Amino acid sequence: MRRPIVGVMGPADAGRALAEMAFQLGASIARERWILLTGGRAVGVMDAASRGAKSVPDSITVGILPADHRTTDVSAAVDIAIFTNMGDARNAINVQSSDVVVALGAATPGTLSEVALALKAQKPVILLEAGDDVQRFLTDHGAGSVHVAADPADAIAQIKDIVLSQSNASRP
Amino acid sequence: MRRPIVGVMGPADAGRALAEMAFQLGASIARERWILLTGGRAVGVMDAASRGAKSVPDSITVGILPADHRTTDVSAAVDIAIFTNMGDARNAINVQSSDVVVALGAATPGTLSEVALALKAQKPVILLEAGDDVQRFLTDHGAGSVHVAADPADAIAQIKDIVLSQSNASRP
Amino acid sequence: MRRPIVGVMGPADAGRALAEMAFQLGASIARERWILLTGGRAVGVMDAASRGAKSVPDSITVGILPADHRTTDVSAAVDIAIFTNMGDARNAINVQSSDVVVALGAATPGTLSEVALALKAQKPVILLEAGDDVQRFLTDHGAGSVHVAADPADAIAQIKDIVLSQSNASRP
Amino acid sequence: MRRPIVGVMGPADAGRALAEMAFQLGASIARERWILLTGGRAVGVMDAASRGAKSVPDSITVGILPADHRTTDVSAAVDIAIFTNMGDARNAINVQSSDVVVALGAATPGTLSEVALALKAQKPVILLEAGDDVQRFLTDHGAGSVHVAADPADAIAQIKDIVLSQSNASRP
Repeated sequence: MRRPIVGVMGPADAGRALAEMAFQLGASIARERWILLTGGRAVGVMDAASRGAKSVPDSITVGILPADHRTTDVSAAVDIAIFTNMGDARNAINVQSSDVVVALGAATPGTLSEVALALKAQKPVILLEAGDDVQRFLTDHGAGSVHVAADPADAIAQIKDIVLSQSNASRP
Repeated sequence: MRRPIVGVMGPADAGRALAEMAFQLGASIARERWILLTGGRAVGVMDAASRGAKSVPDSITVGILPADHRTTDVSAAVDIAIFTNMGDARNAINVQSSDVVVALGAATPGTLSEVALALKAQKPVILLEAGDDVQRFLTDHGAGSVHVAADPADAIAQIKDIVLSQSNASRP
Repeated sequence: MRRPIVGVMGPADAGRALAEMAFQLGASIARERWILLTGGRAVGVMDAASRGAKSVPDSITVGILPADHRTTDVSAAVDIAIFTNMGDARNAINVQSSDVVVALGAATPGTLSEVALALKAQKPVILLEAGDDVQRFLTDHGAGSVHVAADPADAIAQIKDIVLSQSNASRP
Repeated sequence: MRRPIVGVMGPADAGRALAEMAFQLGASIARERWILLTGGRAVGVMDAASRGAKSVPDSITVGILPADHRTTDVSAAVDIAIFTNMGDARNAINVQSSDVVVALGAATPGTLSEVALALKAQKPVILLEAGDDVQRFLTDHGAGSVHVAADPADAIAQIKDIVLSQSNASRP
């Protein structure tokens, strides 16, 4: 049985506090032996979460890059780089390949598209540090699939519940 | 010089009033000699807007389908069917290929992803019949690129202004 | 009923004789009132075929671009530019959206990938000016779907047969 | 520094001898501590190579699936499933994400498209059990990037050389 994949999405342009939270979240995901999936670039939440995961032994990090293999913009903390060369269309792949999606930080258009595509693909989404209006809007329009976490520890607890229920659902 | 392409996005599951508005919008777009681009399926806003456009002589309608050419789910009012076989990842192609995007009706996840991807691609978005909270949220997060139209006639007037300013910007 | 779409694929780097043949082929396709689909760039076979088609009144040319809308590399003879921003992955869209694929000229990797993807999608392929070894190899491996045309007029005659049989097959 | 990714491409419909060779190749790739990348489905060369790799401790297998996460057609030997939902357009992602591509077995359209897309992306390709005419055709048209291996051990030796030269080229 495959280890769960947790996608962490968030702004390419993240301040220090958000990057630190992404690092902690990535590390916590790795400690649960889940695989971390991000957009793979060497910036913002993607990079920080990947570095957090790689601070834990035996972690696996996957990056789904918008560019091709000639790009130099790959986080050094990504183990497996998938070069889609599809630009933002790769956002659909990110969420389809994640068992749970965590959206970290403000609702930039990129992150917002990933949340919307996750809902379209019927994937559970957890919001962390999203801002009050974003939380309200997305939970109102999320048909029960959007959850709000108070902090990284709460996000991990919620992911555990989701992963467990998915695992039970797929058991014959 | 290419004729402008106006993308009309909206729910696959549209009630009679919304479908009628999509029809009027498609017809008005065609009367301006703009090309109509939709998601191409034989349902909802996509189908109604395409039928509206084809009620006008010499109109051109493009459909960017999520399925491949074996699907039967193509609006009979689509002139040019592009079969991406990419599912929701084709939403990125829809907005990248439109000069202006009109989002019609409620913020379903599919439409919301198209608005977000349009903002990411720096394309102007016009909301029509979007609901108050959707309008407020998207204009707040749209960095000046999200506009609200009162009715189809207002949408057409706004598209004219946008198309004119794009045309001036591209003139040497 | 939609007008047939004929895809013309060929090298971005075409000499004068091949470009002239692409122009004639594009013009002949337009005279049949078929829609021409190419890779859309302002170079080689794509550009020449599109210019040929636009030399005929009421023609329609579609270009499926590998880049996004910020590129300047769009043939001026393309009416409808679809900006995939997917690089070579757009080759799959080219052939899935064509009722017949004509591969013009030498077997560059790009054209070869389009022929292979066309066969995978069970689309008929017509080779023109392909070179003896390419013709032999692709007809040997094409499971009856690869045809060789002696010249543009022969290609048009073969497309007519194919389009007619497809039209009959889809009739109830 | 990321571990090299070796892509193994080949028919979904493989006989016993070819499947056995794919298994051995996958196992040898894993023993070198390279990551195995395949099309991820539970059939043919993809499945056999993945099972071979997983017969080796601490191996990592990646599958780039043509379908979405609702498919049941995922090899049980895939550790990391990337659900593109892009059909054959995902073949471009397969080769762009591989440092070396091994094409195993006969030139089916799918495998042929991957070889062609690999050449377009300037990736080295190794042919194994390809048939004389396929080897001749692809080496003739491969501009020095297509190599022929006599057996899996020879393929591994050639991959080692390629990976070493790529690693030297990327060193400052």
